[in-house]
Amino acid sequence: MRVLVVGASGTVGQATVKAFTDHGDEVVSASRNSSPAIDITDVASVKEFFNQAGSFDAIVATLGSAPFVHLEEADADDFHSGISNKLQGQINLVLYGLPHLNDGGSFTLITGILTQHPVEKSVVASTVNGGLEAFTYAASTDLPRGIRINTVSPNVVEESLDTYGAFFPGSEPVTAQSVANAFVRSAHGVETGQVFKVW
Amino acid sequence: MRVLVVGASGTVGQATVKAFTDHGDEVVSASRNSSPAIDITDVASVKEFFNQAGSFDAIVATLGSAPFVHLEEADADDFHSGISNKLQGQINLVLYGLPHLNDGGSFTLITGILTQHPVEKSVVASTVNGGLEAFTYAASTDLPRGIRINTVSPNVVEESLDTYGAFFPGSEPVTAQSVANAFVRSAHGVETGQVFKVW
Repeated sequence: MRVLVVGASGTVGQATVKAFTDHGDEVVSASRNSSPAIDITDVASVKEFFNQAGSFDAIVATLGSAPFVHLEEADADDFHSGISNKLQGQINLVLYGLPHLNDGGSFTLITGILTQHPVEKSVVASTVNGGLEAFTYAASTDLPRGIRINTVSPNVVEESLDTYGAFFPGSEPVTAQSVANAFVRSAHGVETGQVFKVW
Repeated sequence: MRVLVVGASGTVGQATVKAFTDHGDEVVSASRNSSPAIDITDVASVKEFFNQAGSFDAIVATLGSAPFVHLEEADADDFHSGISNKLQGQINLVLYGLPHLNDGGSFTLITGILTQHPVEKSVVASTVNGGLEAFTYAASTDLPRGIRINTVSPNVVEESLDTYGAFFPGSEPVTAQSVANAFVRSAHGVETGQVFKVW
């Protein structure tokens, strides 16, 4: 299986590249610094990447950010920033990756536990995740050629506790490897329209 | 109770204005054609409206649109259009209406059955609804001064069957009055962070 991992330089991305490689797949690692590069927030960049990168059996997204801010301190730009990056960015991957995905292939996107369990300042991230999870289910009903789509929703990742741990008191962190396994399970499995919760 | 109904000229909006009025509330009806006017997609318009309109005990949104399109025919602009209108637009109402909402007041937004039950060409609408429902829950954990927030999720509305009925085979339409009652129930109730399904 030829697998594209977009966001391959991140904590989850690196573990995901390793998990697919260990499974025997051919992995193409992509990020803003790869060659060809891809910026999921830029439609032209996404189109150009796929024109150069060929076709895939699985397209996996392990990236997307949203600002952390209290609702009372948030403005429209905070929501616009999270929406255009993690939500519209991953949707761009689906829209413009679709013609380059082989019959019977799959997309796997990423959200997070904040959809169902918000924490302090997560309102933008929670909103974006909710959009992606509804997108996943609706898109699964409308994809052609036996193509599937799922989303992996991790809890806070052990390797990122220094950065995010303070926002998740009482949470039981998961390893990047567990999250990576969920991507492999989605790409090599049979399910579609599902959220694979790693928590 | 002084209630603002934004989207008051639509089918659900008119029924909602009547339901609050029948309940004995003072209703301010707002739309792009009211005076003052409000365009929820335009932050400057939302801010200016609230500067002129005073303060409220309940802010209710009965509007928001998203293009109907198959995923394979959709492009980033289709998603951007639905997101900036129904998702970011209603969030703008919360962000910039919040300082004008009295202590103990409430927001009630609108989504629809397509969040959980997509139909043909609903992928943009489903995405937007999912974002709003996650926003509702996350925002409810972060609102100050005892302010509540809920979302009303209608099935296809009987009065709109001529326009939308063909997309909802087998659905049991609900009346605009039932949807309007859910807004009254949210504004005069005690719940927060909930999706009130009218289906």
